[in-house]
Amino acid sequence: MNGPQQIDTNAPIGIFDSGIGGLTVLKAIAHSLPQENFIYFGDTARVPYGDKSQSTILRYSLENAMFLMDLGVKLLVIACNTAAAYSSAKVRQFFKIPIVDVIEAGVAQALQVTTHQRIAILATRATVRSEVYQQALRVAMPGAFITAISCPLFVPLVEEQLLGHEATRLLVKEYLAPLKELNIDTVLLGCTHYPLLAHLIQEELGQGVIIVDSATACAKQVKLLLQQHCSIVATGNSNSNHRFYVSDDPYKFQQQAERFLDWKIATVERADSGVHH
Amino acid sequence: MNGPQQIDTNAPIGIFDSGIGGLTVLKAIAHSLPQENFIYFGDTARVPYGDKSQSTILRYSLENAMFLMDLGVKLLVIACNTAAAYSSAKVRQFFKIPIVDVIEAGVAQALQVTTHQRIAILATRATVRSEVYQQALRVAMPGAFITAISCPLFVPLVEEQLLGHEATRLLVKEYLAPLKELNIDTVLLGCTHYPLLAHLIQEELGQGVIIVDSATACAKQVKLLLQQHCSIVATGNSNSNHRFYVSDDPYKFQQQAERFLDWKIATVERADSGVHH
Repeated sequence: MNGPQQIDTNAPIGIFDSGIGGLTVLKAIAHSLPQENFIYFGDTARVPYGDKSQSTILRYSLENAMFLMDLGVKLLVIACNTAAAYSSAKVRQFFKIPIVDVIEAGVAQALQVTTHQRIAILATRATVRSEVYQQALRVAMPGAFITAISCPLFVPLVEEQLLGHEATRLLVKEYLAPLKELNIDTVLLGCTHYPLLAHLIQEELGQGVIIVDSATACAKQVKLLLQQHCSIVATGNSNSNHRFYVSDDPYKFQQQAERFLDWKIATVERADSGVHH
Repeated sequence: MNGPQQIDTNAPIGIFDSGIGGLTVLKAIAHSLPQENFIYFGDTARVPYGDKSQSTILRYSLENAMFLMDLGVKLLVIACNTAAAYSSAKVRQFFKIPIVDVIEAGVAQALQVTTHQRIAILATRATVRSEVYQQALRVAMPGAFITAISCPLFVPLVEEQLLGHEATRLLVKEYLAPLKELNIDTVLLGCTHYPLLAHLIQEELGQGVIIVDSATACAKQVKLLLQQHCSIVATGNSNSNHRFYVSDDPYKFQQQAERFLDWKIATVERADSGVHH
């Protein structure tokens, strides 16, 4: 039997995403667990996953998970909603370490905060189509009213930093219009880019609606899992050591990542998680 | 010596793009040369190329070219502006068959139609940054005034079919604002998706501006090259045979492609142009 007691407690936590969005998750976890070390992998050569097929997303995700396993991570965070939707069952089946995925984490927090069990999910088209959010919420809360809306332009608008642009405001209004008559009490942001539009979403839906963002939800879940598997909490080295790998240009990622994280990053290395590395 | 005379005149013309946009090029060429056969490869598992690094774009493009060479094409069309920007020199250096790329074709037509040598290029960020359009125009017409504007949201807006949306109109206005005082006479659309926004661009810049689209420019170039290498013009089989390959889900591509082309497509096959196929 190989139990968690054989895992190095100071081993890093692995996080992967299709690109840069998962850094919001890394930031939230690092803030909540400052003594831990992290390895982040952004599959920037194959980003975005949102419109790719189920089998392609699964293959890429397994390659990314394997890449991080190979670097000796003690816990794996699937920080990409699309990857989590299509691969988390297989990743949990294949690998022995604890797995946290943004979907499970977001769902857990939405269930905790909803006041009238009327929840809307906002996500990419692939995530909405996968129905994982809807199914997870329905299983946990069978009487709940659940609806889901895909907002495919939110990611490019965020990446172009048009966070306050009139065009962004118009598209937020248009995407959210179907929610107006539904008395939603909780909106679950099912994409790591969407928290950057939370202010516009809140404005459009009114202050009465609770917005759940997956990054902070994920941080809570990681903390909980490390407490449950208490043998794998890092013993507290104040010189936390974070490593960053990407499958495309490290320099471009580094610049974007420093804006996302508000940290200086020493180095970003290039690595191909694909089968031919 | 292996000359073009050894090539099967009824061999197909190969066209590749990062995804679906190159179908505008295929449609224009097929319309102009109805007796030819085509093989289209859309690298849908790795789309989009626009924000990837130079070395990654080059590697993907060479893999795509090799995939089509291996299927026996007699002429190769690089229908993706980003791929053409970073790979056409290497593709021309490596392969023996005639090569047409959207950039060379668009530049040739812009030079032909410009009335006052004041030309603006609209393209993705990677294409603008590559400076290939600007350099090619400056070399051919040293006295010309050349400017280039990247419009990164045009591709997602077109793919979401928001062609008449107010948000699209606002973003067209914003992207084109720097052109207002420049007395541009010709706008060269350096991305295969942009022709679908030509009506809004024309409206914004006024009827006096000539819009050059790369798909029809490419068709002219292919026709010219086949006439020059007259031994490789197909002898005219009215049952033209077109084949479609993609690196991701064939079904989704087929549905989109039929809308793009306004044809019924018999089959789309899945193929991986990458090194591990």
